[in-house]
Amino acid sequence: MHWHEVLKQLVEPNESKIVLLVADGLGGAPLSPGGKTELETAHTPNMDRLAQEGTLGMSIPVKPGITPGSGPGHLALFGYDPLEFVIGRGALEATGIGFELQPGDIAARGNFCTLDSQGRIVDRRAGRIPTAECRRLVEKLRTIRLPEVELFVEPVREHRFVLVLRGSGLGDQVNDTDPQATGVPPLEPQGNDPPSQKTAQLVAQFVSQARQLLAGEPQANGLTLRGFSARPNLPSYKELYGLRAAAVAVYPMYRGLARLVGMDLLGQPQNLQEQLETLRQHWPQYDFFFLHYKYTDSTGEDGNFEAKVEKIQELDAAVPHILELGPDVLIITGDHSTPSLLRSHSWHPVPVLLWAKTCRVDGCQSFGEQEALRGGLGQFEAQYLMPLALAHAGRLTKYGA
Amino acid sequence: MHWHEVLKQLVEPNESKIVLLVADGLGGAPLSPGGKTELETAHTPNMDRLAQEGTLGMSIPVKPGITPGSGPGHLALFGYDPLEFVIGRGALEATGIGFELQPGDIAARGNFCTLDSQGRIVDRRAGRIPTAECRRLVEKLRTIRLPEVELFVEPVREHRFVLVLRGSGLGDQVNDTDPQATGVPPLEPQGNDPPSQKTAQLVAQFVSQARQLLAGEPQANGLTLRGFSARPNLPSYKELYGLRAAAVAVYPMYRGLARLVGMDLLGQPQNLQEQLETLRQHWPQYDFFFLHYKYTDSTGEDGNFEAKVEKIQELDAAVPHILELGPDVLIITGDHSTPSLLRSHSWHPVPVLLWAKTCRVDGCQSFGEQEALRGGLGQFEAQYLMPLALAHAGRLTKYGA
Repeated sequence: MHWHEVLKQLVEPNESKIVLLVADGLGGAPLSPGGKTELETAHTPNMDRLAQEGTLGMSIPVKPGITPGSGPGHLALFGYDPLEFVIGRGALEATGIGFELQPGDIAARGNFCTLDSQGRIVDRRAGRIPTAECRRLVEKLRTIRLPEVELFVEPVREHRFVLVLRGSGLGDQVNDTDPQATGVPPLEPQGNDPPSQKTAQLVAQFVSQARQLLAGEPQANGLTLRGFSARPNLPSYKELYGLRAAAVAVYPMYRGLARLVGMDLLGQPQNLQEQLETLRQHWPQYDFFFLHYKYTDSTGEDGNFEAKVEKIQELDAAVPHILELGPDVLIITGDHSTPSLLRSHSWHPVPVLLWAKTCRVDGCQSFGEQEALRGGLGQFEAQYLMPLALAHAGRLTKYGA
Repeated sequence: MHWHEVLKQLVEPNESKIVLLVADGLGGAPLSPGGKTELETAHTPNMDRLAQEGTLGMSIPVKPGITPGSGPGHLALFGYDPLEFVIGRGALEATGIGFELQPGDIAARGNFCTLDSQGRIVDRRAGRIPTAECRRLVEKLRTIRLPEVELFVEPVREHRFVLVLRGSGLGDQVNDTDPQATGVPPLEPQGNDPPSQKTAQLVAQFVSQARQLLAGEPQANGLTLRGFSARPNLPSYKELYGLRAAAVAVYPMYRGLARLVGMDLLGQPQNLQEQLETLRQHWPQYDFFFLHYKYTDSTGEDGNFEAKVEKIQELDAAVPHILELGPDVLIITGDHSTPSLLRSHSWHPVPVLLWAKTCRVDGCQSFGEQEALRGGLGQFEAQYLMPLALAHAGRLTKYGA
């Protein structure tokens, strides 16, 4: 039996409230060997107090050594094995711009490219045209009509866009048309099974019409498509955990990921202040709240150690406002590490703080990577964080008599 | 999808160098409760410095409580789940004497035995005849010819030898002919499927001819065979990790294991000094080096605590010579524990030291079992050591966007 089936059978409802506060890319690394990480450097009196009362640990999002993207990182935090539940590239791209895929939709990531007079690719990214230019070209492509299916073309950034086909009997086993090389024409789309063959034929028509529409463009006169994928089949928070769940997030990617697991999206907050206000307004209506805080990741990706420290401190200042609402379980963690040192996501385990009245003392005095190593949760796979949250919320009954 | 397939897709090449220094049987135990282990007793200033700069942890080769042999112990370190990738007894015996099995070969472990006039086993080990005697008898068996297959008979030690059949359409589902009892004749070989039936028939002919050749021998006038097995189907280091990998090992078993995963064998070093010299000579040509150091295991198996301490100290003195070459990632660990106290391999987790510029501080001050328990790698399955090595070497890209 799948582990989720076991879990479902143990779930029992109550009145408790769980808050999962995800500081994106929270985990860090020292700038020089022997130094402190960003989280260890930050002055975080509120999280430190919670660390003393609660339990710390280190989570491994995927497997040791594996650096997760935002998709797998969040799926793991939401309780889905990120090696089993995979979001295809096209589906993730659509999710990232807030496009809500329906079951049966097929999404692909598109790149505008430059073709020579023979139809061979000269520049795979069409000189990275400005986003405004991308929007203009997408408007052209939106005039394309295909039989039986509804088409969506959405601009992303620079030369990137998303193509979605909506209709019945489509498949996602279609090859990338991007040859990953210049001097050759884009590949023909081909399907590996009958539904995907149908998709490939429709995609070929789309490409052909697009070529005509783009023919006069100086840079973006062609396109490639890759990562054909359907909406991933994820059991919802309601089905799995019996939770009325909501997301309070600013950025489309995280709002999209939350929608994939059936969370409601609350408001259109633009910053942490507005997120807290949104949380307060909807507090009575939900059992579970996912709060996403982006800036610990973006400052890490900028390689700005000091700015990441500051963003952690800003987050710390928000903690009392969450506590005021009276959550039964508050978790503060990240979906992965983003050390300023590396200017990118990394494989390092992610510090976790779980605060509830049912925590054992583990002797941790502050919230940081070194303390978390000694914490009561030990090192564990992030996919087990949700069961721990449910347990501390009194929402899981005994397994076996 | 198999985890290895995921890993393969994440691998990207770079110029980094990884060294895996395996001190066989490194983990130990105190001679009396509350005491220090061999590694904790040893004076290891070089490894201690690396412990301060790097990350420690404890690896579990197979599962908690399971004592691995050299085969599973090394497979785990090389990144193969030792419960999934199994080296059959015959194949391991062949590997252990440096016999390079080809795909399709079938290997079995042979024991000379003593039979009475009725053909019943009197001594399953033929009085443990000397190895020289074994070699003489093997020369006799080498005169045997069978239709369609090439035969290899190789002496091992005392009453043990290896039989290899090379030909097409052979199978390894053949029963042991050793009845594990005296007073009864050896069992007839039988195959469980058509290729194995073919193998069993050939083996029966071999046994029959061998009986005639050995008829006049006073002790070793019979033989039994067991552990029929093919070369295990292991994806190579090149396929899995994109690494040009080489082994610098003295003993045939470890050289053989390295060959099974596609490592090149460098030189014929006879001691650590020569191993370091070999490493230095080939440094530019490879991305990954497996150095095997035997004496921490052999002294442990001798029950010689002091000697094991000394051998660890000798290894510590070699560490600066490895560092001089400028590895990006240096790992020092064992394939299992061999506490002098037990005079044998054991199930105890194995201390791991991973040193790279991308390590977080974990507060560990020296390389030893107690410190490693508090290390940043936590307790983890040894099969994830290679992904960690690749990650710290910058050789793994993000999983999912």
